[in-house]
Amino acid sequence: MNDSPLAIGIDFGGTSIKIAVVYQSHLIDQAPPIATQEFGERGPLIDAIVRSVEDLRARHARIASVGVGMPGFVNFEKGLIHGLTNVPGWQDVPLKQILEARTGLPVVVDNDANCMAFAEWRCGAGRGFQNVVFMSLGTGVGGAIIANGQMIRGMCHGAGEIGQTSIDYQGRVGHYGNKGALEDYVGNNEIAARAHDAYRAAGVQKPLEECTPAALAHAAHLGDTIAASLWNETGQMLATAAMNLCWLLNPEAIVIGGGVARAGNLLFHPFEKHLFAQLSGPFKDALRILPAAFGHEAGIIGAAALAREHAAQPGN
Amino acid sequence: MNDSPLAIGIDFGGTSIKIAVVYQSHLIDQAPPIATQEFGERGPLIDAIVRSVEDLRARHARIASVGVGMPGFVNFEKGLIHGLTNVPGWQDVPLKQILEARTGLPVVVDNDANCMAFAEWRCGAGRGFQNVVFMSLGTGVGGAIIANGQMIRGMCHGAGEIGQTSIDYQGRVGHYGNKGALEDYVGNNEIAARAHDAYRAAGVQKPLEECTPAALAHAAHLGDTIAASLWNETGQMLATAAMNLCWLLNPEAIVIGGGVARAGNLLFHPFEKHLFAQLSGPFKDALRILPAAFGHEAGIIGAAALAREHAAQPGN
Repeated sequence: MNDSPLAIGIDFGGTSIKIAVVYQSHLIDQAPPIATQEFGERGPLIDAIVRSVEDLRARHARIASVGVGMPGFVNFEKGLIHGLTNVPGWQDVPLKQILEARTGLPVVVDNDANCMAFAEWRCGAGRGFQNVVFMSLGTGVGGAIIANGQMIRGMCHGAGEIGQTSIDYQGRVGHYGNKGALEDYVGNNEIAARAHDAYRAAGVQKPLEECTPAALAHAAHLGDTIAASLWNETGQMLATAAMNLCWLLNPEAIVIGGGVARAGNLLFHPFEKHLFAQLSGPFKDALRILPAAFGHEAGIIGAAALAREHAAQPGN
Repeated sequence: MNDSPLAIGIDFGGTSIKIAVVYQSHLIDQAPPIATQEFGERGPLIDAIVRSVEDLRARHARIASVGVGMPGFVNFEKGLIHGLTNVPGWQDVPLKQILEARTGLPVVVDNDANCMAFAEWRCGAGRGFQNVVFMSLGTGVGGAIIANGQMIRGMCHGAGEIGQTSIDYQGRVGHYGNKGALEDYVGNNEIAARAHDAYRAAGVQKPLEECTPAALAHAAHLGDTIAASLWNETGQMLATAAMNLCWLLNPEAIVIGGGVARAGNLLFHPFEKHLFAQLSGPFKDALRILPAAFGHEAGIIGAAALAREHAAQPGN
């Protein structure tokens, strides 16, 4: 490790806030996590974050910037939080401005899916590509798009919501009125619900809690054909959304992360089969399907990478 | 008109090749169209194009560049034609290089959908926006994407194929193996086929040739409820593909052109209703749905605009 500057990455989650000093893609010093829900109000929570940052700075003189990934709707240019999905009291909070005033460091703020994608693009599986699609598979299905070597944010920083795109124009109505949203088929809970139904249809009473993606992966490895068929169907559904991204954006790579992706080839094999069967040559010949390089640390690594690349420009 | 440079726009179609001198978005001098099929081979066809260009240059000294829109798969950077959809003998033709050598002018070559979208973006309905989606509705359903103020081309210049994106993961298998492709529902012929079926299901024998989009628009205006319902369904299908684009790219505007769009509000009203019902605030509050400003001339205007903006840079 030379004298290059360090960045602090902050992964603000609904349960805990993780803060670390990051060198390239390595967490070289982690602060104790902050329990998000223990703080009733925003003010004390921000105080705790600032204290953590100051503790880390006391140990690392070369910290030059701070990046924060937030679970909600963020204006990246302004570093303004419009609102968070599972944490109340964060409407229209100028977090970048607040943290810059409190720490004296340049700060960037982005949403968590963008941070994870940025980590994969700059330091991980998507490194070196000009056009990359990132999909994150968990309770929610998130995403981000890199095209022409830039992150695509759109008019209001809303771009990349792959989980809300439809795979069935007549599908059931989702949270935003959108019919057939991908997330309503392949989110954690929806996979479990589909498996539960498939077992029941086959005359097997399997409790919902034994239908988690992890349990289904285990079952499929043991030869359970219903579980295997569930993974095939899940791969096909994901492939439809991914193929839409390919026809639209013609990316070099699709990077897939999140808990559900831990099913590995149970998911990746049918996904690739269905995807490649639905694309013409220029869209698939050089297309790479890549598992994400980073796991739980992707958010911190990406927030720090965003800070290194973007926080140095004043007023950004 | 001042002394600003002029460009020649060429719209290479499967039936005819249209060539004109373009000032801003105005065709100020049109060469006689060239009948594409009358030339058995590529060489004589290129000769005819070069003669047209030279005739126009003899009348307009300020012509500084040439832009060509081609109906097929084009490498924009190299100006290389990989192949054309309905014209044989155009595999791997370095058209930019050929025309530059023959005319001495800088030349750009792009596919026709990109040219039309570029016309709308730089001079037409999409002017001034940083993020625009363009949809062209005809026999085929084409498209193009502008994001972060740039045209998105992707790894192999294939991006923007909106007509190939799926609206039903279990839909019928299309030309490229893709299930439920939008074009297989709302292309000219597919609209006619769906109408034909709808009439038959209602006990009405209506010949397929009376089910063209133009005939269906006429019928709907006269109070034909089957035709009106067909337009509603078509609007819903289009809205699904458009909403996917909105969730993915969060554009300021969707610009819709092509023959089918001439149905006007018969199409636009259900399209907007279904689209806005399936988006959350940041994706729809400022979203504009705009009919294309240009009709048949969009390809020429866009090719010339591309030439003005990109052909000046040598080696581009």
